[in-house]
Amino acid sequence: MSKSVAGPEIERLIQLLAKVPGLGPRSARRAALHLIKKKEQLLGPLADALAAARDSVTVCSTCGNVDTRDPCTVCTDQRRDRGVIIVVEDVADLWALERASAMNCLYHVLGGTLSPLDGIGPDDLNIKPLVERISSGEGAKEVIIAVNATVEGQTTAHYITDRLDGLDVTITRLAHGVPVGGELDYLDEGTLTAALRSRTSL
Amino acid sequence: MSKSVAGPEIERLIQLLAKVPGLGPRSARRAALHLIKKKEQLLGPLADALAAARDSVTVCSTCGNVDTRDPCTVCTDQRRDRGVIIVVEDVADLWALERASAMNCLYHVLGGTLSPLDGIGPDDLNIKPLVERISSGEGAKEVIIAVNATVEGQTTAHYITDRLDGLDVTITRLAHGVPVGGELDYLDEGTLTAALRSRTSL
Repeated sequence: MSKSVAGPEIERLIQLLAKVPGLGPRSARRAALHLIKKKEQLLGPLADALAAARDSVTVCSTCGNVDTRDPCTVCTDQRRDRGVIIVVEDVADLWALERASAMNCLYHVLGGTLSPLDGIGPDDLNIKPLVERISSGEGAKEVIIAVNATVEGQTTAHYITDRLDGLDVTITRLAHGVPVGGELDYLDEGTLTAALRSRTSL
Repeated sequence: MSKSVAGPEIERLIQLLAKVPGLGPRSARRAALHLIKKKEQLLGPLADALAAARDSVTVCSTCGNVDTRDPCTVCTDQRRDRGVIIVVEDVADLWALERASAMNCLYHVLGGTLSPLDGIGPDDLNIKPLVERISSGEGAKEVIIAVNATVEGQTTAHYITDRLDGLDVTITRLAHGVPVGGELDYLDEGTLTAALRSRTSL
């Protein structure tokens, strides 16, 4: 705001809210007003929840997931198949795969992809701990590389495959194909080619 | 999330973030992850800012603005023209008018509009204090009614005009017309008619 119409506490709240992904300067003001109006129901609880997260959230030293304990809820869940590890770029991907509920297994979060242009090399990612995790004989039989289907993702997938070469583990990757509910008309040629090549019998 | 992949503190944070206007369940997860990753730069400061707002924000007993002091920054600003009071529906409108920096005067926040269907009558709005503010002879010479150009807003404007009738104050309203930068092609007939009627000489 050009002129200050509210106290510095409110101005600071708006500035910080504007940095939250999904909110901009305009919606941050709207959010701040809404929070102030719902002081008891929302502003207070959100302040407490953020403080609790700040004080308790940590990164799992085994898989790289974020949680309030280390090892994390996923790594310590004994009902999971410990023979399968899904390698993902980001915690958000882990959450997305968990929402799909397709597998009940372990994960490994890389924390990004190899990107020489941005100066991100193998040592900047959580790759060495993955190799150690597999070679230590913890029981992993399959590693599913579930990185994004981008150039950087595929480069990273190849690098990890090389690093795991020789270890007693099966390496797989996600299938390419038509998204469920997707319309062929809107898909790119690469996806259509992959979907045709990997066609299955009805 | 169907299965819990993170501790209850993170789940609760996501649930609360999803209630912030501008964020939904999906973007709340993204926001929570971003906050967790930027623990020192964003999560911590935001927790503190929210706690500070919770502890210090109050409603101005004079004009209905929200601020960290009562009377608020606007009401106590001696450089403002105390002869003009702009009546708005909501604090957001006050902030919007302040951003425009067109006037340097006082405000009065109604806290809504008359809406018999929703059971909102004159006593539910900040109207009586406005009448008292004008009749007490604080020095107000003009009341600009800047409510939204909706049916409820206009009904409220008429009601306030009636209530202020007989007091020594000029009552004005915002001009109707073509928004600056607006294209005629996209405007409704009511706006075009109003803009034609209130045409000014070049």
